[in-house]
Amino acid sequence: MENVNEKAFELHRKNRGKLEIKSKVPIETKDDLSLAYTPGVGYVSSEIGKNKALARELTLKGNSVAIVSDGSAILGLGNLGPEAAIPVMEGKAVLFKRFANIDGFPICLATQDTEEIIKAVKNIAPVFGGINLEDISAPRCFEIERRLREELSIPVMHDDQHGTAVVVLAGIINATKLAGLKKENAKVVVSGAGAAGTATTKTLLAYGFKNIIVADSKGIISGERTDLTPEKIELCKITNPEGMNGNLTQAVLGADIFIGVSKPGVLTAEMVKTMNEKPIIFALANPVPEIMPDVAKSAGAFIVATGRSDFPNQVNNVLAFPGIFRGALDNKVRQFEEKMFLKAAENLASFVKEPSPGKILPSVFEKGVVEAVAAAIK
Amino acid sequence: MENVNEKAFELHRKNRGKLEIKSKVPIETKDDLSLAYTPGVGYVSSEIGKNKALARELTLKGNSVAIVSDGSAILGLGNLGPEAAIPVMEGKAVLFKRFANIDGFPICLATQDTEEIIKAVKNIAPVFGGINLEDISAPRCFEIERRLREELSIPVMHDDQHGTAVVVLAGIINATKLAGLKKENAKVVVSGAGAAGTATTKTLLAYGFKNIIVADSKGIISGERTDLTPEKIELCKITNPEGMNGNLTQAVLGADIFIGVSKPGVLTAEMVKTMNEKPIIFALANPVPEIMPDVAKSAGAFIVATGRSDFPNQVNNVLAFPGIFRGALDNKVRQFEEKMFLKAAENLASFVKEPSPGKILPSVFEKGVVEAVAAAIK
Repeated sequence: MENVNEKAFELHRKNRGKLEIKSKVPIETKDDLSLAYTPGVGYVSSEIGKNKALARELTLKGNSVAIVSDGSAILGLGNLGPEAAIPVMEGKAVLFKRFANIDGFPICLATQDTEEIIKAVKNIAPVFGGINLEDISAPRCFEIERRLREELSIPVMHDDQHGTAVVVLAGIINATKLAGLKKENAKVVVSGAGAAGTATTKTLLAYGFKNIIVADSKGIISGERTDLTPEKIELCKITNPEGMNGNLTQAVLGADIFIGVSKPGVLTAEMVKTMNEKPIIFALANPVPEIMPDVAKSAGAFIVATGRSDFPNQVNNVLAFPGIFRGALDNKVRQFEEKMFLKAAENLASFVKEPSPGKILPSVFEKGVVEAVAAAIK
Repeated sequence: MENVNEKAFELHRKNRGKLEIKSKVPIETKDDLSLAYTPGVGYVSSEIGKNKALARELTLKGNSVAIVSDGSAILGLGNLGPEAAIPVMEGKAVLFKRFANIDGFPICLATQDTEEIIKAVKNIAPVFGGINLEDISAPRCFEIERRLREELSIPVMHDDQHGTAVVVLAGIINATKLAGLKKENAKVVVSGAGAAGTATTKTLLAYGFKNIIVADSKGIISGERTDLTPEKIELCKITNPEGMNGNLTQAVLGADIFIGVSKPGVLTAEMVKTMNEKPIIFALANPVPEIMPDVAKSAGAFIVATGRSDFPNQVNNVLAFPGIFRGALDNKVRQFEEKMFLKAAENLASFVKEPSPGKILPSVFEKGVVEAVAAAIK
């Protein structure tokens, strides 16, 4: 890790970041200037002035995504502010380009006020074909996404929510198939009720899972709790059908599936041993998972997935967001809908031709992943 | 012109705009991913979280400029809205890259409210090393620039004001030298009291010109006028030392220098004939100047400059803004000051080794222009 940190720092220092702007047209002569800039560009502007839809055909808008963060929840590092968010958003832009040929640009906002964020994003929207919200802390992220979806006519997605949810669902589809488990009967425990936990829960429910228990750091989210935010009260209404109370240990008793989007080490070998037959463990805390794969396996886990690239079954948002926005841009999708995400997860799952406990998801470098996901977004 | 329009449209359509985002780092292996993105990027973010100044060293901030417009005054086309501004701002970004290797990105705002523009620019500022305001109509452009300069610690420049003023002053320095005219004695008439006219006037005064008369579409700006905006009342206080009234024809009588940043055709051959010996004419309305160069020459003009590339002495902002921002970024300038612009104009003027009436300014493609201008901004 030391070594990775040093190398990463040096890579960023040497290149002064990771992104640059490149011209797609030559500027070598006065004639070039007269077409790319004045006077020729004036005609292009006039035509767009008459018909705004032309902006998608004649400008970067047709292929651009704003990668928007307020720096309030940077990776697992917390609230470090907008400047500290830049390397992550640049990284995201690099991935957008590499995997889906999308021109993403980092917008790191100097405000963490919900209304100001909404206003800022609406005000910069004309240049972009889509908005990828990123590393914005819960619960503000929910309202910001909801409002922007209502108020903008370009697709808006908080990747920490739906990117994660899509890849988790894809992995769960293959894992349950391998375990011979039916979604209607499976007992699922989600550890973590932030952006990822909330969206994953809702997506699994929309897909047809019926029995999901969500736990946050205080325990199972239930009607008995008096400390719930409005968002968690909403979660409570749609989960925990048996009205369980207690802690995570009690929640996982007899569970088929554990999905951790929470903290290192919260799932122990002893807890895995209390789960149902063929336990499916998604331990996605990064870089240190809720349980280490070898520990989980020794305790009887049938399938283990993590967020890390150095273990099998990496749940990586890069499997989802490039294809999701590629499809949205290509099909001029006005707004994302849950059914698109479900279809994206199905496509991602079926992309793995012969799933096995050690391979429930494609690698991010497999060719065709982006196209498979993009085909779902229309 | 028809032909240029068609070619420009086709260039934009074929390329879907002119800009793309490019990665400066490879993403071909899991190791690449672990440095450019997680987990390595987390360390880079943490370090910036501890010391925000590192963002200039480790991210695109050290070399990036936001090109901000609200679409209210696009070239000479008027208020066509933010989508129509995109091709011009993309063009500007292309020029930033081509001439100064600066990564400019278009920010076209969905608001024309002064306070909202100021707030939006402040909110997006963390990613950028500088702010280039563009094609924002007067008088809002003055307050927006002033406030942003006060409230941000990255340099902010409205190019329609200062980019123009710098290049005009550079040309005027060489023109007056050739005409044997002293700045203290020269009578200057500025036609146009918008962004360019106002800034050019103030810059010429700061340089040492004493006798400037400004005229807008209603005539000479004088204390007798009852229709002046607050900005024009300010202009009135520092210009027109003899308290003249009347129209543009009366203003140019006996003038040494005419600077038009106004409308096609407002200066006639007859008016040129009433000017002092060796009249200097800057007819910068684009694409059709205040007077055509051949007409001005026939009427006795000593030097004629226009905004066009197909006549000698092109006054083109491209001579100024790439170098101005290059210098600002390289020298970590916190805010622009008038003295920097004066020095930039001097450097630009002296870049022309042997000025002549047909060559008072460099061509935009001459090597070394950007460096000469950049050397002034520190």
